Amino acid sequence: MARQQAKARFRPVGDGSKHTSEDTFLREEMQLAFRNRGIPLEALRYPLTPTGMHFLLTHFDVPEVMEESWLLNVGGLVSNPLTLTLAEIKSRPSRTVPVTLECAGNGRALLQPRYISQPWLTEAVSTSEWTGTPLKGILDEAGVSDKAVDILFTGLDQGVQSDIVHYYQRSLNLAEATRDEVLLAYAMNGEDLQPQHGYPLRLIVPGWYGMTSVKWLDSIEAIPRHFDGYQMDQTYRYTVSADRPGEPVTTIRVRSLMVPPGIPEFLTRTRLVKAGQITVSGRAWAGRQSVSRVEFSDDDGMSWRDAELGEQVGEFAWIAWSYRWDAKAGRRFLRVRATDSDGNVQPSAQPWTLLGMGNNMTQRVEVIVSKPAPC
Amino acid sequence: MARQQAKARFRPVGDGSKHTSEDTFLREEMQLAFRNRGIPLEALRYPLTPTGMHFLLTHFDVPEVMEESWLLNVGGLVSNPLTLTLAEIKSRPSRTVPVTLECAGNGRALLQPRYISQPWLTEAVSTSEWTGTPLKGILDEAGVSDKAVDILFTGLDQGVQSDIVHYYQRSLNLAEATRDEVLLAYAMNGEDLQPQHGYPLRLIVPGWYGMTSVKWLDSIEAIPRHFDGYQMDQTYRYTVSADRPGEPVTTIRVRSLMVPPGIPEFLTRTRLVKAGQITVSGRAWAGRQSVSRVEFSDDDGMSWRDAELGEQVGEFAWIAWSYRWDAKAGRRFLRVRATDSDGNVQPSAQPWTLLGMGNNMTQRVEVIVSKPAPC
Repeated sequence: MARQQAKARFRPVGDGSKHTSEDTFLREEMQLAFRNRGIPLEALRYPLTPTGMHFLLTHFDVPEVMEESWLLNVGGLVSNPLTLTLAEIKSRPSRTVPVTLECAGNGRALLQPRYISQPWLTEAVSTSEWTGTPLKGILDEAGVSDKAVDILFTGLDQGVQSDIVHYYQRSLNLAEATRDEVLLAYAMNGEDLQPQHGYPLRLIVPGWYGMTSVKWLDSIEAIPRHFDGYQMDQTYRYTVSADRPGEPVTTIRVRSLMVPPGIPEFLTRTRLVKAGQITVSGRAWAGRQSVSRVEFSDDDGMSWRDAELGEQVGEFAWIAWSYRWDAKAGRRFLRVRATDSDGNVQPSAQPWTLLGMGNNMTQRVEVIVSKPAPC
Repeated sequence: MARQQAKARFRPVGDGSKHTSEDTFLREEMQLAFRNRGIPLEALRYPLTPTGMHFLLTHFDVPEVMEESWLLNVGGLVSNPLTLTLAEIKSRPSRTVPVTLECAGNGRALLQPRYISQPWLTEAVSTSEWTGTPLKGILDEAGVSDKAVDILFTGLDQGVQSDIVHYYQRSLNLAEATRDEVLLAYAMNGEDLQPQHGYPLRLIVPGWYGMTSVKWLDSIEAIPRHFDGYQMDQTYRYTVSADRPGEPVTTIRVRSLMVPPGIPEFLTRTRLVKAGQITVSGRAWAGRQSVSRVEFSDDDGMSWRDAELGEQVGEFAWIAWSYRWDAKAGRRFLRVRATDSDGNVQPSAQPWTLLGMGNNMTQRVEVIVSKPAPC
């Protein structure tokens, strides 16, 4: 089950502690930033993120998978174990769902001190249309036993994390796994999956942070207890101390981002805007909740004004917002914050967690408004 | 010509100097790393990089371009100025060329001290098949005057760099601009350009570092002198001191990379390999030259052995190489180096330059070879 877990020792990073209070970044963090990709914030203009601009978090390497030799194994506590080719999976009923995916560690590098890992600032979110067959149909076909507690998903990506050699594995309990919107997805924005997005098949769990949507699926297994592997119980948890496990990270918290207005300065990404009326726009999302309100501030969060809500791309996808801003000359700090249908509001300062998970602090954009027009 | 160049003041980065000797990275460098994308090194396995895995360097924002309202203007010292729609450009003779593009700043962050800019390590290279119409045909149609010295290319991407507000602009002299392989490209790997790769039209200059292949083309202008705009004369130069201009950066220097063997440790990307015979492979390239030799080292460059050369993807694209390595237990530092047809060999230590350009130092991959098999 937690197959091929073994120990291996690697050199320590930085001073050997797992956190840093420095405002600068380690070489290992930079290396991860180049492998893992954020959405350029101007791409928030698209309701569906162009495939090549979608954010990416890959724990290990993108595996090389040949369709000819690939099979999905569905087993464990089932009465009818399945071994399916991609063509067989594509012949099952299909569904297309627009889904906003966000990495659970988005915003990690804004915490102080921060956990040394993928150092996301604000950009680990995107929306695509995913096509696949509902997982529920496949589980029904396999006949899951009533002794099953979790459904375990194993990817073909293998590596070492916290000295444990393992394949990437996550589970869902039976109730979550059999929700209508959970897909075994083989297409993204109408095309076969690209290798880095999980070709040939990945799980898509709408509403949840991205770690649950296991890529490069190899097997699905019904198991008689909660899965406690590394990616489940030793990371992706809300905790403030190493000796307490904390709650598991599950669905996406309410959050919003703006397309930074005007034009950028290359190095600082500070924006240059000419004074006058401009429309600032962006997207907001809230996992399984809906977004009930979006507010805009041009004084770094001292005061807030209601933005206008636009089209929601789908039940599990972001909603557009816009605000007609009267930009007055000077240095401004813009912020945006969203409220979900349960009344949760994005915080202006992020509560600290050990692993830097679920950070939904309001975005801050520095703008120089100049008059007369600089451009 | 150098239209809308103006001055604007932005806050300094770091201690205000343009270089740092720290081994850690500034927040602004990290922010750039998330916008600009490296190739994950395992993607060197593909002769043509999947579009969504191609490296990206965007100075400013990806502009939003609508095909309906977009036009290419060809003017300046020409007898027959042209205004062309995308459909008109697509109706001209077309050519498809596989091209290895590399960012001129690749390897910058391995220098000490380093210039504070996009902090590439080794990953700013990729290969695609580009389709377009030869620029020469368009220039012939426009009738370039014999008074023309440079052909100036202007993109739709605007921003501020070194306090200068400008659109991205680069030029080529007439001899370079009229080479057969220079394309006005509208397709990448057989599909319309994605927004981040220059939709709807970009220049592709095979053999040159990527800064010359101007994206989101707005205009092409024949001008009577050498273009001296910011992106031409104030950056992209080989220089060792701020008071000497140095030589301009032009074609790509010989370089090679390996697919890191085995499996990665998440944070350090150190590799875990089991002892025994394994094939290490990768790609090598040399701009307009060909690659005559690739060598492999498993002792950090103390000794070198010839690798086998494989298929070259195209005249201006990388060549495959492989080496049958007998991996012996212990910690190893692997290196690969290529030699071009002019006898240039990749250095083991990079000569320092002020802006960190054209760095082709040999790649170094840390591997732990374990016995018995860890996985």
